[in-house]
Amino acid sequence: MIGKTIDQISVGNKDSFTKTITETDVYTFAGVTGDLNPAHVNKTHAEKTFFKKRIAHGMLVSSLISTVLGMKFPGPGTIYINQNLTFTAPVYYQDTVTAEVEVIKKNEEKNRITLKTTCKNQDDKIVVNGEAIVMPPKK
Amino acid sequence: MIGKTIDQISVGNKDSFTKTITETDVYTFAGVTGDLNPAHVNKTHAEKTFFKKRIAHGMLVSSLISTVLGMKFPGPGTIYINQNLTFTAPVYYQDTVTAEVEVIKKNEEKNRITLKTTCKNQDDKIVVNGEAIVMPPKK
Amino acid sequence: MIGKTIDQISVGNKDSFTKTITETDVYTFAGVTGDLNPAHVNKTHAEKTFFKKRIAHGMLVSSLISTVLGMKFPGPGTIYINQNLTFTAPVYYQDTVTAEVEVIKKNEEKNRITLKTTCKNQDDKIVVNGEAIVMPPKK
Amino acid sequence: MIGKTIDQISVGNKDSFTKTITETDVYTFAGVTGDLNPAHVNKTHAEKTFFKKRIAHGMLVSSLISTVLGMKFPGPGTIYINQNLTFTAPVYYQDTVTAEVEVIKKNEEKNRITLKTTCKNQDDKIVVNGEAIVMPPKK
Repeated sequence: MIGKTIDQISVGNKDSFTKTITETDVYTFAGVTGDLNPAHVNKTHAEKTFFKKRIAHGMLVSSLISTVLGMKFPGPGTIYINQNLTFTAPVYYQDTVTAEVEVIKKNEEKNRITLKTTCKNQDDKIVVNGEAIVMPPKK
Repeated sequence: MIGKTIDQISVGNKDSFTKTITETDVYTFAGVTGDLNPAHVNKTHAEKTFFKKRIAHGMLVSSLISTVLGMKFPGPGTIYINQNLTFTAPVYYQDTVTAEVEVIKKNEEKNRITLKTTCKNQDDKIVVNGEAIVMPPKK
Repeated sequence: MIGKTIDQISVGNKDSFTKTITETDVYTFAGVTGDLNPAHVNKTHAEKTFFKKRIAHGMLVSSLISTVLGMKFPGPGTIYINQNLTFTAPVYYQDTVTAEVEVIKKNEEKNRITLKTTCKNQDDKIVVNGEAIVMPPKK
Repeated sequence: MIGKTIDQISVGNKDSFTKTITETDVYTFAGVTGDLNPAHVNKTHAEKTFFKKRIAHGMLVSSLISTVLGMKFPGPGTIYINQNLTFTAPVYYQDTVTAEVEVIKKNEEKNRITLKTTCKNQDDKIVVNGEAIVMPPKK
């Protein structure tokens, strides 16, 4: 049940998680967060915007990064310190998003690693870009 | 239906949104994102961790910032560019979180504002800290 | 699958549905409707109000009337014409609400019935009061 | 955090909230209320009815009125006294509903206002009609 500890982690290590984002995801996320912004839940309004259709919340898409970090790599026991996110393109209903994390720095003394965190859609277009700092689980 | 445009925005403007985070919120968020990390949904495991109890996802708590930006200030029509997040303290079930945004920089030419974004619990303890860059709606 | 038709309905006929209203119900209802009013989802705020605790949405409680009308009496095929609602007392989390309908008028020519519609809590206190007009299913 | 008080309210004041009603909304509402009437959640049955397709619950659609009253105008602190609803047309999945409230009467002594409450679909067709009485928040 415990993820990888810092001695088991190397720069270049990668992992990912993929999910098709549905209308249900967006509506449920809107309900939990209270973010019923018309861009997400008003079809008539969205058709008149630059994006033409209802889009997923950037924070919903980005949350898949947390899924990778907490579930897969480093995995359970990881403590989330910092996340930087740049929203580079819209995610539409039924887009398939892959969140990928890759270790780019490792500080064994402080038990911290820095990861490049990227979300791409099914066409390999980057939709969210950024970096995370986490503390892997202790031995 | 349109939020505040850049000419209606000044450095120092603030807004906020408050919600008590429940077990239902954490479980629903876990289901949508796939982040069923034991820290969030495994009571037995959580009791043995540093935090002693199941905690809310940092990204769930941080999403209340998006609620303020998209629903209240600047409001509908805002485009989210960047969000930086530092997770400074855990949020437990039944904690009441207030997400607050405050304009700290304004670039009228590029139609961009920078906001200090803070989430606090019911005891005024900062749980998430950071900054956002957004484009307010166009006239 | 078809409910009672007008010839099978008499003044005085009654039916009811009972459910304990939970935090999950209130939060889910808030998410679907966008009504994240602090009276319903902000514990800290609610403690300072007249009601002292978070309360259920009046419209959530009242929706149990629709459950009786559409599921039990007259049942499937019923068309909802009008509903009047007076909210007479708060419903707290974990209160057990019984919605009861009772036929008080019948217009066979127009295929319409009027029902007294009441929601009570576990202490028999009326929390919602009113009347409904429906068209029972056609033969 | 407090909405408009009676001295800040005039006859003619309006506000609204808009949401596209999805299958997810109808199914979630059905689950919370127990109203799994075949008109709402049985496609095969619904195709044989007068409405030809599954429709949203009238009470779900009407609940958007409560969203406006509690979140926007008068806003937090408002106490809901009475709501009258006439269901005038069906709402189908993917219809975009706007709930609008407009002050038509004001009783400063009793701290009560009466509002015309209307829900329209994307074609401006009235789907729910009625009036509400509320007590705006006290100073």
